[in-house]
Amino acid sequence: MTAGTVADGTRSRLLATALTLFSEHGVEGTSLQMIAAELGVTKAAVYYHFKTKDEITEAVAAPALRELDAVIDEALAQRSRGAQIDHALAGFADLVVQHRALVALFNSDPGIMRAIDRSLSGNENLMTRLMTILVGPEPDFADRITVHVVLVGLAMAGGAVEYRDIDDDTLRGQLIEVGRKLLGRRRKRAPANQNS
Amino acid sequence: MTAGTVADGTRSRLLATALTLFSEHGVEGTSLQMIAAELGVTKAAVYYHFKTKDEITEAVAAPALRELDAVIDEALAQRSRGAQIDHALAGFADLVVQHRALVALFNSDPGIMRAIDRSLSGNENLMTRLMTILVGPEPDFADRITVHVVLVGLAMAGGAVEYRDIDDDTLRGQLIEVGRKLLGRRRKRAPANQNS
Repeated sequence: MTAGTVADGTRSRLLATALTLFSEHGVEGTSLQMIAAELGVTKAAVYYHFKTKDEITEAVAAPALRELDAVIDEALAQRSRGAQIDHALAGFADLVVQHRALVALFNSDPGIMRAIDRSLSGNENLMTRLMTILVGPEPDFADRITVHVVLVGLAMAGGAVEYRDIDDDTLRGQLIEVGRKLLGRRRKRAPANQNS
Repeated sequence: MTAGTVADGTRSRLLATALTLFSEHGVEGTSLQMIAAELGVTKAAVYYHFKTKDEITEAVAAPALRELDAVIDEALAQRSRGAQIDHALAGFADLVVQHRALVALFNSDPGIMRAIDRSLSGNENLMTRLMTILVGPEPDFADRITVHVVLVGLAMAGGAVEYRDIDDDTLRGQLIEVGRKLLGRRRKRAPANQNS
């Protein structure tokens, strides 16, 4: 094991710890000192990886945003409009479910959104690209409201504490169903059993 | 004009001022002193009406919650299930649009939700009653997700800063349309012109 992999391990433990503390105390209510104490390291060890809390906040959110970017690229690679919508919707629902703790934090703590708005200027672009896939390049007001309700509604429901005990597949399936209804995509039929 | 009506006038100016300051600085970031200064009165004058910021927060939200309660009563007085759903949905969309500034505050500041959760125990009951109208008394998981997306989605979209310049009727109409789609209610046809 090299020094690099040790540092990488600390870095990801640090981000996981930061997410937990952010969820418990909010971004504003969490200090670098608290993160260091929870990890059992010195504040200097935290500073080795991140100079400010904003950098940590950004790094906590970055993997999910990168995955969303990849989902959008994959969706755009689909041939038909329908397949693009389906891919983007399923990918978005999947990300919401996979990153529930982060999504819950987005939903409840304006601090993390402000930190991300400040630092990731590509973020708005991400949402514009997603909207273009879901309702086309020239959305009217009805389209914009629909996409707004789909994205925010799925994120808020997916991150909601009342569904914490619902398993990933069930939650993802239901989020996709709601999104399909709103986007006017037909309900996917259960695969028919050819032998019955 | 009696002393009572003077006090009532101050009280409603105080609540309007509090909502403005809450919107600008968050509930946590607003002090009784700031409210007094903005109103041009002494802190004692604020204390005459409210002993704590929580009482002010509660009073800022109370009218909208009372109106929602009334909407639910009116919806329950409708004869058919369909008419009940339509009334509740239209009433909810109307409240969101009428109280946009408050709704935006709900959406962006967990402080106000915490204050209201603490103080208005009837609030959960309100949401349960609304859910019962929209999807019936024994909602399954799919129903719960649908209602969650309808209520949160409409509130988040209705309070969103990007639609601040959209007029009330247009915004309300589109919110209702989205809700009808999700709840499986048919699109209302535009009234036909009998003479054409």
